[in-house]
Amino acid sequence: MSKIIEYADASPRVRAVYDDIMATRKTDWVNNFWKVLANDPATLERIWSNVKQVMGPGSLDPLTKELVYVAVSVTNNCRYCIASHSASARNKGMTDEQFAELMAVVGLANETNRLVNGYDVPVDARFTEISPQGK
Amino acid sequence: MSKIIEYADASPRVRAVYDDIMATRKTDWVNNFWKVLANDPATLERIWSNVKQVMGPGSLDPLTKELVYVAVSVTNNCRYCIASHSASARNKGMTDEQFAELMAVVGLANETNRLVNGYDVPVDARFTEISPQGK
Amino acid sequence: MSKIIEYADASPRVRAVYDDIMATRKTDWVNNFWKVLANDPATLERIWSNVKQVMGPGSLDPLTKELVYVAVSVTNNCRYCIASHSASARNKGMTDEQFAELMAVVGLANETNRLVNGYDVPVDARFTEISPQGK
Amino acid sequence: MSKIIEYADASPRVRAVYDDIMATRKTDWVNNFWKVLANDPATLERIWSNVKQVMGPGSLDPLTKELVYVAVSVTNNCRYCIASHSASARNKGMTDEQFAELMAVVGLANETNRLVNGYDVPVDARFTEISPQGK
Amino acid sequence: MSKIIEYADASPRVRAVYDDIMATRKTDWVNNFWKVLANDPATLERIWSNVKQVMGPGSLDPLTKELVYVAVSVTNNCRYCIASHSASARNKGMTDEQFAELMAVVGLANETNRLVNGYDVPVDARFTEISPQGK
Amino acid sequence: MSKIIEYADASPRVRAVYDDIMATRKTDWVNNFWKVLANDPATLERIWSNVKQVMGPGSLDPLTKELVYVAVSVTNNCRYCIASHSASARNKGMTDEQFAELMAVVGLANETNRLVNGYDVPVDARFTEISPQGK
Repeated sequence: MSKIIEYADASPRVRAVYDDIMATRKTDWVNNFWKVLANDPATLERIWSNVKQVMGPGSLDPLTKELVYVAVSVTNNCRYCIASHSASARNKGMTDEQFAELMAVVGLANETNRLVNGYDVPVDARFTEISPQGK
Repeated sequence: MSKIIEYADASPRVRAVYDDIMATRKTDWVNNFWKVLANDPATLERIWSNVKQVMGPGSLDPLTKELVYVAVSVTNNCRYCIASHSASARNKGMTDEQFAELMAVVGLANETNRLVNGYDVPVDARFTEISPQGK
Repeated sequence: MSKIIEYADASPRVRAVYDDIMATRKTDWVNNFWKVLANDPATLERIWSNVKQVMGPGSLDPLTKELVYVAVSVTNNCRYCIASHSASARNKGMTDEQFAELMAVVGLANETNRLVNGYDVPVDARFTEISPQGK
Repeated sequence: MSKIIEYADASPRVRAVYDDIMATRKTDWVNNFWKVLANDPATLERIWSNVKQVMGPGSLDPLTKELVYVAVSVTNNCRYCIASHSASARNKGMTDEQFAELMAVVGLANETNRLVNGYDVPVDARFTEISPQGK
Repeated sequence: MSKIIEYADASPRVRAVYDDIMATRKTDWVNNFWKVLANDPATLERIWSNVKQVMGPGSLDPLTKELVYVAVSVTNNCRYCIASHSASARNKGMTDEQFAELMAVVGLANETNRLVNGYDVPVDARFTEISPQGK
Repeated sequence: MSKIIEYADASPRVRAVYDDIMATRKTDWVNNFWKVLANDPATLERIWSNVKQVMGPGSLDPLTKELVYVAVSVTNNCRYCIASHSASARNKGMTDEQFAELMAVVGLANETNRLVNGYDVPVDARFTEISPQGK
């Protein structure tokens, strides 16, 4: 386990990120992920800047983004990330029913991904025509 | 590559599933995933039944479910599944902007999952208190 | 794609491994995996020695070992390994029905692995008592 | 960690699944995986139905299916699933020697999967001819 | 496959990133990864900024960083990333012998990772004492 | 958790490996990985022989090999392996700054691997020409 750097022990550079996290999230605490990244201030700043940009307002609503985050974390078996982003999703309105459906979709996708691998299914021509991105 | 079983060559048991897929999706074709699973009718029926239940109406809207499916498939590098579920997502309204944001969230989640692993971040006590499911 | 080293172009050191592969497998050809590893004779020898020991006679029958190999390769999405070990499994007697059941088990295991991750299921005390290995 | 729903606290719908699990397995207890899925009765029923069908009698013997389940779970690092399916495998006759050989095969497959990725080994033409499924 | 945006067709915003990539790398071309990310200029800018910071001068030499990049990409089976970062590694001096050793280490690590999972090895107390980061 | 076999309880065959581990590493202790593998002496001998060959002197320096080992273990989320190989890396000179940079590279590679998957980036022709291995 890496050292957890509390606000009281943090350098001004680290405190600036903690302050921005709390202001952006409208909370009065910072979770351990950031307190551990604080061991490397450059990474702390860079990752927070990425999270702020990617998880901020856009064309996908904030709850959907958290659900996707949980889906990836469950697939990768990242226990901390599942806990933290499930909490964020709940804060943004995720119900127990939605969490249960999310788990069902994630489980099923992991299953069919492997059926596709094992049976070596060729991509349908239609799937390559339909996308505006040329996909 | 596994043998693709076209409708014309399919047994009545397999045709029944193809018919239900087309009726449920309101389309006139069946994609290769099902035509390959048709080599094993029991699995074809079982997986279709699961997909119909899990991806059907519920507390998460259909587009969100497709986005989650794509997120898992991208994380697992399942090329076919990315193509097929991106197509489904587009059919349900996903825009280019939403696809791009989805990719950004999936990429970031895969990154921070590993930062958490490497730094061995302990789960905050708050995350275990906040969930109605006891999580 | 790495260079494929054919028997005719191989050094005596590499030929010795190719010869042992063909003698052990009672075949007259060597598949590309070995012809590519031959770019690094030390790794070629080491991996062949491991495969020979691990996949050789033991308490699990040869077909079961190939099925396990396919299961891992499908989970990891290694197309070459799925093709080569499915071929080996068929040579050792795997039927179409067995392949289909294998895929079903692999798919399901990948699904329930994620349900366990997402719901963070605690290990039952009974599972830690039952094993002679203390597990 | 999700809430564990004991038999005494379960709804009739959930109890019906618990009863079927115990009857099918000829045991008097239900492991935590099911007690946690019980938070979502639809998923509990669906997954149990899948497990019953996939892990039930077929062309692969029950022990082989459990070994494959363990192999996938070890590859995915699902600690709970390794514990539960190793226990099932032992109940079906897996010896310490077989467990050790299983681990050796799983480890080796994970290694050679990556050697194949890194060296980008092309699939041998022979592997595409040999399968009755056209693979 | 996503649309590839060539320099001639790129917006000024995208060209600015392409120009910086070429200037930073002292080359006269841009590889497809960036030409595809250009479909989403915000992500193009963000990821290039991250790559420039993370892969730039620091306490690890540039070749070591590329070797680590290849190791991750081989583990994840990202064919494009293996090709592109192997090319970068060769440009920074990686020899055939070093590539072969890298593959050997990556393969072995993937193997022993799974042996650890399967045998559920407890972390030695000494490993938690030795690190200045408290790990 | 598997049984840990201490030196005092080990067979001569197992002790011979423990002795070689301590002599090779110039230490007076053996970590749990080996004490658990000792439940299967054939695997203990085989894996130690592989580790000794792969991690021994070669064209990559010992620290680089440990960094690669950590990178793979972080990607696979193998907590034990991260702890043990981070300790080895520190013993070989890894500084806190280098560990932090390693984490940054591993995180970024895991992110861009997924962006490549999701956008389905085609391999540039140049990447297939540049390698002496024909890659």
